[in-house]
Amino acid sequence: MGLIPREVKFFDLLEQQSNTVVRGAKLLQECLESKGSIDDMYLASKRIHDVEHEGDELVHRLMDRLNKSFITPLDREDIHELTSRLDDVLDYVDAVAKRLVTFKISTPTHHAVELGRIIVRGAEETAVGIALLRDLSKSDAIIRQCAKINQLENDADQVMRDALNDLFNGGAKDPLEVIKWKDIYEHLELATDKCEDVANIIESVLVKYS
Amino acid sequence: MGLIPREVKFFDLLEQQSNTVVRGAKLLQECLESKGSIDDMYLASKRIHDVEHEGDELVHRLMDRLNKSFITPLDREDIHELTSRLDDVLDYVDAVAKRLVTFKISTPTHHAVELGRIIVRGAEETAVGIALLRDLSKSDAIIRQCAKINQLENDADQVMRDALNDLFNGGAKDPLEVIKWKDIYEHLELATDKCEDVANIIESVLVKYS
Amino acid sequence: MGLIPREVKFFDLLEQQSNTVVRGAKLLQECLESKGSIDDMYLASKRIHDVEHEGDELVHRLMDRLNKSFITPLDREDIHELTSRLDDVLDYVDAVAKRLVTFKISTPTHHAVELGRIIVRGAEETAVGIALLRDLSKSDAIIRQCAKINQLENDADQVMRDALNDLFNGGAKDPLEVIKWKDIYEHLELATDKCEDVANIIESVLVKYS
Repeated sequence: MGLIPREVKFFDLLEQQSNTVVRGAKLLQECLESKGSIDDMYLASKRIHDVEHEGDELVHRLMDRLNKSFITPLDREDIHELTSRLDDVLDYVDAVAKRLVTFKISTPTHHAVELGRIIVRGAEETAVGIALLRDLSKSDAIIRQCAKINQLENDADQVMRDALNDLFNGGAKDPLEVIKWKDIYEHLELATDKCEDVANIIESVLVKYS
Repeated sequence: MGLIPREVKFFDLLEQQSNTVVRGAKLLQECLESKGSIDDMYLASKRIHDVEHEGDELVHRLMDRLNKSFITPLDREDIHELTSRLDDVLDYVDAVAKRLVTFKISTPTHHAVELGRIIVRGAEETAVGIALLRDLSKSDAIIRQCAKINQLENDADQVMRDALNDLFNGGAKDPLEVIKWKDIYEHLELATDKCEDVANIIESVLVKYS
Repeated sequence: MGLIPREVKFFDLLEQQSNTVVRGAKLLQECLESKGSIDDMYLASKRIHDVEHEGDELVHRLMDRLNKSFITPLDREDIHELTSRLDDVLDYVDAVAKRLVTFKISTPTHHAVELGRIIVRGAEETAVGIALLRDLSKSDAIIRQCAKINQLENDADQVMRDALNDLFNGGAKDPLEVIKWKDIYEHLELATDKCEDVANIIESVLVKYS
């Protein structure tokens, strides 16, 4: 009933939420790697949507708890910002899956597969970053973790450029196909950008309390 | 001359600003629903631009007042953030109107009309959210209000997907038309995203002061 | 060894960083104005990337210093936010240069040249804004400086519209060329948006401490 268990609870909820992001990213990765039918893609997108919904529930529980707790382990607005930005990552993962269905894409390019893998790693490293917030005295480890997430975003930029290179310089292409793929790549890249946003807040929290 | 009237003034200005957002959104909606000529579209975009300019004036008055007041009802940086993000919504409304003119679109699709309606509702619900900031003790009402605004953003996502589905799967299309419409839809969707950003700050203010 | 030199150091680092943004923007401008070969464009993009890397080093030094200093001239999270957003400007400058290479563009349009000039001015005015943070008592000068940066963003919007007008209404065009140019213009415009984000934080810092 004391203060400590209540504080721990916030970190538990943030970790559960970052876990939904990892699960969503892995489902998207399966989607991208499977060479299934459009129907399989549709079913997979439904499963991602369910995980996204689970993530939303955790955001609401966190918000509710924030409004009812006197003591929080970090400033309330920082916890709110972390949960909002984690939610953004999962929203983009969900958006990519839905676009794959809308664009009737059954066999993603190897660039899309590579971006999907980077998103999974981004989600995993972000989850580690969130877990590190429990002990802000480990500032070196936190900074290194955020640098890792930023590096993944750079990796995604590089893959994005390779993908655009293939798309525009790989011989005659149907313009509508180019539009679709550019859109898919941009949404995949945005998911890694959003991981970087979370890393940015983790850093901001670190400097604020250091 | 006391502190209380001065505090109230900040809320007055924020409400006036959110009112310009509602008016801009309604003018855009008229634009989208009218089946007029390009000239009508151009005149309507000029009127939206005037409202956007009015909104800018309110931002400057708020900024000026922030720099001259000792006491503010919320932290200065929160008021600044609210006025900046409200301004973003109106900027996107203005941007859509200008794109309709640039792209010489006289008869918007029903998806565009539907997105326009969601923006009007988003602007109206955001204005209600801003008004609720006067009494942060009504936390349940504020949370519900923000959830409403978030829901509208989800609705816009769904319409966006339907619109893309029609655009890409509705038979042979001129690629340039596809590019134009995708751009219009994206800007319409961004206006609802920006309403969600305002809701996010309202929530953040709420948790900070609760 | 006292507190004051250490405080000054933060402003020094921020000014050095804003200087890398100016240099990156100028290199991009040279790129856009030269009518060279793709190879020249590639070499220029490498030089921009080196400046971007220099900027990253300054971000890391600032972060490191933030974590080791007891006293900072502004709140730590504000310094962190300023360095992060300045970094964004340079990232977009770098991204444009890389896109020019990927899209094999050797002779940029006059709209791209004009946007490049606005980015240089945006970077320069942003650097002035950063320098003004040393003395927050000059609030009128700071507000005017931020208004200048915002105005440049409006100018960029106008050029963007002219560019889109030419792109879509200037006679039959290859859709792939339209997609490429629209993407280039959007990235150029985003660089000015990011300058506006920095101005927004400068204003926010000003109101917070006034």
